[in-house]
Amino acid sequence: MRRFNDLADFSNEEIKDLIALAARLDKNPEPRALEGKVLSLLFLSPSLRTLSSFQAAMIKLGGGAFVISPDMSIHGLESRYGIVMDGTAAEHVREAIPVIASYGDAMGVRAFAERRDLAHDLADTDFKNLTGLINKPWINMESAIDHPCQSLADWKTMDDLGVPEHGKFVLSWGYHPKALPLAVSAATLRMAAKRGMNIVHLRPPGFEMPPAIMDQARKAAAASGGSITETTDRREAMEGAHVIYTKSYSSTKYYGDKLGDQALREQLVGTWCVDEPWFANARPDCRFMHCLPVRRGVEVSDRILDGSRSVVIQEARNRLYAQMAVLYRMMKG
Amino acid sequence: MRRFNDLADFSNEEIKDLIALAARLDKNPEPRALEGKVLSLLFLSPSLRTLSSFQAAMIKLGGGAFVISPDMSIHGLESRYGIVMDGTAAEHVREAIPVIASYGDAMGVRAFAERRDLAHDLADTDFKNLTGLINKPWINMESAIDHPCQSLADWKTMDDLGVPEHGKFVLSWGYHPKALPLAVSAATLRMAAKRGMNIVHLRPPGFEMPPAIMDQARKAAAASGGSITETTDRREAMEGAHVIYTKSYSSTKYYGDKLGDQALREQLVGTWCVDEPWFANARPDCRFMHCLPVRRGVEVSDRILDGSRSVVIQEARNRLYAQMAVLYRMMKG
Amino acid sequence: MRRFNDLADFSNEEIKDLIALAARLDKNPEPRALEGKVLSLLFLSPSLRTLSSFQAAMIKLGGGAFVISPDMSIHGLESRYGIVMDGTAAEHVREAIPVIASYGDAMGVRAFAERRDLAHDLADTDFKNLTGLINKPWINMESAIDHPCQSLADWKTMDDLGVPEHGKFVLSWGYHPKALPLAVSAATLRMAAKRGMNIVHLRPPGFEMPPAIMDQARKAAAASGGSITETTDRREAMEGAHVIYTKSYSSTKYYGDKLGDQALREQLVGTWCVDEPWFANARPDCRFMHCLPVRRGVEVSDRILDGSRSVVIQEARNRLYAQMAVLYRMMKG
Repeated sequence: MRRFNDLADFSNEEIKDLIALAARLDKNPEPRALEGKVLSLLFLSPSLRTLSSFQAAMIKLGGGAFVISPDMSIHGLESRYGIVMDGTAAEHVREAIPVIASYGDAMGVRAFAERRDLAHDLADTDFKNLTGLINKPWINMESAIDHPCQSLADWKTMDDLGVPEHGKFVLSWGYHPKALPLAVSAATLRMAAKRGMNIVHLRPPGFEMPPAIMDQARKAAAASGGSITETTDRREAMEGAHVIYTKSYSSTKYYGDKLGDQALREQLVGTWCVDEPWFANARPDCRFMHCLPVRRGVEVSDRILDGSRSVVIQEARNRLYAQMAVLYRMMKG
Repeated sequence: MRRFNDLADFSNEEIKDLIALAARLDKNPEPRALEGKVLSLLFLSPSLRTLSSFQAAMIKLGGGAFVISPDMSIHGLESRYGIVMDGTAAEHVREAIPVIASYGDAMGVRAFAERRDLAHDLADTDFKNLTGLINKPWINMESAIDHPCQSLADWKTMDDLGVPEHGKFVLSWGYHPKALPLAVSAATLRMAAKRGMNIVHLRPPGFEMPPAIMDQARKAAAASGGSITETTDRREAMEGAHVIYTKSYSSTKYYGDKLGDQALREQLVGTWCVDEPWFANARPDCRFMHCLPVRRGVEVSDRILDGSRSVVIQEARNRLYAQMAVLYRMMKG
Repeated sequence: MRRFNDLADFSNEEIKDLIALAARLDKNPEPRALEGKVLSLLFLSPSLRTLSSFQAAMIKLGGGAFVISPDMSIHGLESRYGIVMDGTAAEHVREAIPVIASYGDAMGVRAFAERRDLAHDLADTDFKNLTGLINKPWINMESAIDHPCQSLADWKTMDDLGVPEHGKFVLSWGYHPKALPLAVSAATLRMAAKRGMNIVHLRPPGFEMPPAIMDQARKAAAASGGSITETTDRREAMEGAHVIYTKSYSSTKYYGDKLGDQALREQLVGTWCVDEPWFANARPDCRFMHCLPVRRGVEVSDRILDGSRSVVIQEARNRLYAQMAVLYRMMKG
């Protein structure tokens, strides 16, 4: 495997093979599989789960990782081209990235969206510019518009829980005081579609997913026997649901317009916090999923997170094993 | 071993077994003992020795560790319950701690005292709330009121030096410009008592150890054939001493009262800095111990630290081997 | 090997043996050579390549490293002697360094020049004070006046590229908005001299290398059949050159005088940025070398860095293998 950037680059068989490998490595450790192998990790955005789980994954397979983050270790990285570097940034990505890559057998990169221009972020322009500089196998650890490690872990989590491939999957916007990136929602929609699920996207006006993402998801659903609809009606969305997956993100109507986003968002305080009444007409065992971090009492109530519906810790734990499978295929084959 | 939180949870035989294992691992390395094993380290307070020695310990045993610290990697952790998280903290410990724990085979946690309320800190309330969320074996890397890794290393250091089990042990307050936590002093008092030593606690008025700690130490001393007295008289304390262990901490009389502590503390500048005259009536080979970091010329003179009495580097080195023994028992049995 | 501080401490045979070992470890990995071995890394100055490549080197050899940096983990380190530590620094290097060293089998230290007094920095006084406290094998990861890991990697890079031992080597000052340390230039000059090269040092008035460094380089050149000249004339310098190695550094005439350095430096904007016309009378395959980080459009043009002359990524990659060879000799023999 040369890159792990988007689940869409893999057949469903390949995804299932990765998930089977993840389960095998959980059950039967292989502590020397990647001995002497190095994973280079570049974090241009903050992290907890990704930072921890990639390091843990390499140790469990007998290798190791090092972490570079501009805040920790270097005086800023310049990424614009053709610029005279007489400001504060002391190094350009055109040097830094090939160098960091040259010290590892594979590389992970995280760089969130700038959220100034929607088309720019949908094309993952900045991320492609960064990863185009890597001449080693590499992993998307969350870009402007994708988070394939989260999606692979979520797919495995649903398999582990026995959620049917064609089960009903609600992807819901949730309230959050800040405008957040689209990456997880966009990745989740396409993952659930690829898995064959019957998806309802529940979101308030102004928070519709971009047409390009909806199109990709619809095509994936068509190929796998799933479906996608959209609604602002919570009752309709939750009817018979197997899973509700919540994620907040910035308004797509006011993308890059901080004041417009804020004005729209403020009207939604208190009405988009997932709580038990949401589940009135869902399946009794309907699960609550979230990629974390999550704001308690804001996106979701304490009782949901602390109750039996929540599988957020299992999702996070599956990050470790999903990533071990990817690293194994990448560095051992 | 499921947890290493307090030496009092172990019999003296178990402590001696850990120290013997530490010595064995120093003499006969076992570089594959913990291959593929991961230690999760959560630092909610700063560190040098603990941060270094736990990572080194895992490498020496063939595994590895990852470090999470809010300053490094995440936008603050919320620890209050039932709160609406619409402020700056992006994640709650109820998610973060189980997730971090799930990536390792064991976990270490450091969280210093808040030093607002003495009863709260003596009960180690905040730390119990954190560690109650871990469903893996875990290690106290210094809590509000305990530091068992330091105590185990100090016990071993005295064994290495031939300090008799019933030797005279002076635990002395030392001057420091800031009010510091009670954890090391409280842990040291109980460790020396458990080891069977004849302890004199030397401290100025207003810096008495809390009665609850004194009671625990007296019971431990009674069980092991040791004793505890308290004094403000340096000459009396040092008479025939084998060891003086110095540690500064906040006034217990003015605990949580910054101005009261400061006013009392300022009267003690210059008179509580350990120096050679302190040793006039001690045993000629009386040792100076300190957990580090130590302020030169403030808590102790240069000539003591640089002279033959000081064993502070040996204590710090023993942290590594003491912790290797704990990790070995925890992850290998 | 007990220390790797200066290439001058080794014979040319020993250097060639290290380079051969580096090449062997690149071609034939030894992922268990240093199992259970720990490298302690202390960074008192920022880093990207050194931070990454030393961690990667230890993983590739089956051991591991931990990193201590005051910014990350500790409240400042005091290094003055005989001081009363009642300020902000919580720990003295006299404790911190032996403790950090005691957790590893070898130690790396980085501490840049203070650039207040040239004689002080030329004697590497601060660095000697720090490394004098280490009782383990240790490595200079860049001091006030040396950077032997960079030099060893650069020597290997020229070998890899077939640059003749007596080839023509131009060490050129480059423009940079800030005054930078002398370490890399001083190390490079002595490395190229030791390798036997015919060196021209190209620099504007006020940026002459200190006589002590020139003397060391001249002696090394005499022993190896090389030579050294100095000039301000670019055309003369570049005539028939095999390599131009660029590095900016502070004015030696105004060393420690920020305003004097700045006034002199400002006159040089735009005229000391390496670009294709510099190579008019060089050998057609003349290489561009730089230790990185480099400021594009300031020290060197984009087209040079992105063109076929530049070997800066190879130099950085060779850091990894050069350091693996040093670590191997230090910890395995």
